[in-house]
Amino acid sequence: MPVKPDYIRPLDLKHGRIDMNHGAGGRAGLQLIEEVFARAFDNPALREGNDGAVLALPAPAAGHRLVMATDAHVISPLFFPGGDIGSLAVHGTVNDVAVMGAVPLWLSASFILEEGFPLADLQRIVQSMAAAARAAGVAIVTGDTKVVEQGHGDGVYISTTGIGALPPGREIGGARARPGDVVLVSGTLGDHGVAVLSQRESLGFDTEVRSDSAALHGLVARLLAAVPEGAVRTLRDPTRGGLGTTLNEIARQSRVGIALDEAALPIAPQVEAACELLGLDPLYIANEGKLVAIVAAEHADAALAALRADPLGTAAARIGRVRADEHHFVTMTTRFGGQRVVDWLSGEPLPRIC
Amino acid sequence: MPVKPDYIRPLDLKHGRIDMNHGAGGRAGLQLIEEVFARAFDNPALREGNDGAVLALPAPAAGHRLVMATDAHVISPLFFPGGDIGSLAVHGTVNDVAVMGAVPLWLSASFILEEGFPLADLQRIVQSMAAAARAAGVAIVTGDTKVVEQGHGDGVYISTTGIGALPPGREIGGARARPGDVVLVSGTLGDHGVAVLSQRESLGFDTEVRSDSAALHGLVARLLAAVPEGAVRTLRDPTRGGLGTTLNEIARQSRVGIALDEAALPIAPQVEAACELLGLDPLYIANEGKLVAIVAAEHADAALAALRADPLGTAAARIGRVRADEHHFVTMTTRFGGQRVVDWLSGEPLPRIC
Repeated sequence: MPVKPDYIRPLDLKHGRIDMNHGAGGRAGLQLIEEVFARAFDNPALREGNDGAVLALPAPAAGHRLVMATDAHVISPLFFPGGDIGSLAVHGTVNDVAVMGAVPLWLSASFILEEGFPLADLQRIVQSMAAAARAAGVAIVTGDTKVVEQGHGDGVYISTTGIGALPPGREIGGARARPGDVVLVSGTLGDHGVAVLSQRESLGFDTEVRSDSAALHGLVARLLAAVPEGAVRTLRDPTRGGLGTTLNEIARQSRVGIALDEAALPIAPQVEAACELLGLDPLYIANEGKLVAIVAAEHADAALAALRADPLGTAAARIGRVRADEHHFVTMTTRFGGQRVVDWLSGEPLPRIC
Repeated sequence: MPVKPDYIRPLDLKHGRIDMNHGAGGRAGLQLIEEVFARAFDNPALREGNDGAVLALPAPAAGHRLVMATDAHVISPLFFPGGDIGSLAVHGTVNDVAVMGAVPLWLSASFILEEGFPLADLQRIVQSMAAAARAAGVAIVTGDTKVVEQGHGDGVYISTTGIGALPPGREIGGARARPGDVVLVSGTLGDHGVAVLSQRESLGFDTEVRSDSAALHGLVARLLAAVPEGAVRTLRDPTRGGLGTTLNEIARQSRVGIALDEAALPIAPQVEAACELLGLDPLYIANEGKLVAIVAAEHADAALAALRADPLGTAAARIGRVRADEHHFVTMTTRFGGQRVVDWLSGEPLPRIC
């Protein structure tokens, strides 16, 4: 009987690169999973090494519901001030679960790696994901890795799916805004988009702006604890397309209008300056750590105070109100007292911002 | 007050193509979601249009557990005899949930589209996904769409994540095989891989082989109903890397050896012929609709009969047994009575087979 040789040396995490073998389902792929992914994401479900993860619901009470959310992440560049595609992939999906009012519990992660991608970059991204997941209290319990030839990817794309537990009786969604409700935002607008744009070589500006990429489940929990169940109608994280797009979506889903007050919008001076330079409107620039909350008017003060008491919400502001409007317009009173329509995104898109 | 123009015409699903606007989070992206994805996948959770889907567990009994599984799909070409990337993305994840012994309930789907991809192809793929999901009894409840520039993708990549409900007391996994257990396979090996290879232009052979891509949850249910709880130790779908890789994984997880009988392996004559022509070993060729079952010896006959009674298992066979082996070798008695080691995949990989 031959003795099985242990011919695979540890991965060269300094100088090694992804090759097609890492995606072929053999020993090289297993090694990549064990030495990079499993080591960083380590948890009991993942350690089982099965095709799926077995998960015990923490409190399977009658009426318990799940929330499931998914995001593909194709951001370019992969590393940017304030984060990278790994932390972003965790935050993005944790936030999609959290804005439904659910407690995020588990994530899956699937990776599409481009042949030639440096293992050192992959390791850095995976460790950043692991740290973001730990900080958010979620476990990355299952995953998959595929490799595509050079010229059919861009380093790494990451799709994450999250599961959270939704407490009985909690009903939060885009269709629940009612005329009279108040629109709150948890902080400054456009930080993520401007931070990413600042890294693109073709754009000749330097800025100190950092992405706001962050997990919002703690902020959401604080907000929900501060007001009666039902007072928070809608929560959203205004990512791709920015606040303007998010509010148009809500107006459409709820069949209402929304009136914004431009003077109340929190925007960092550097972001404002960068947007002016580039001819961009911060209303349409992506955020990755901001919460839009639509709240019953009588609980708006308590909600705003709760947001401001959280480290992620110190710059929270009341920025508008919901009104009856059969056209479902988002409008804005400008700083000069005029009126404008905040329409759906038009003109040049900002590609691959998340 | 301006009247919001309804300036977007219906998508041109015959001649239109994906452009960067479809990924920018504005009205074009919303239109793509509504006219292609939501129309095909239609279900109440998706219809809500929120960042995540709210899902009520059908029977949230105490001790109820979930199974979560995920796969990225990067197969090339996108269309092949017997399926396409859409049906494959559903089957692949449904099967990963089913082989854990769980009942598949919900899927999420995230799409990475390449600029210039024909909308007609996308529509065809999405409708194929929808049909596969309906047939498997799962709902595609949430999703995401991103667009990358030409030269950074390959038409479409699809990541799917599945959730299933695992009945109390059910324990199936790769680490549960024991010496004496019997190894069953539900049908012929290598059909998927050969069907896909036959479509690659650079390979000059024509064959009638169709992919076996199929959802295995019904076959699994029939098998589990035929034997006592606990008799089925391990279930796997031997995809990328084929049966040889899957059995090596199980041997390693369970710390056992596995002895195969080559004469018992079901392989279609056309697949055998194609493999000979290409110098490939069908043991390492991907399957997408086959089940490997490791079963307690005393229940192997009943298990085999149950597999054979299912339309997806008519060619099921008993192909080997589990044995004690501290080296965790997979070995095979060849047709000529010799012995060989079925090692981990080595040599040239078959890229992008799923």
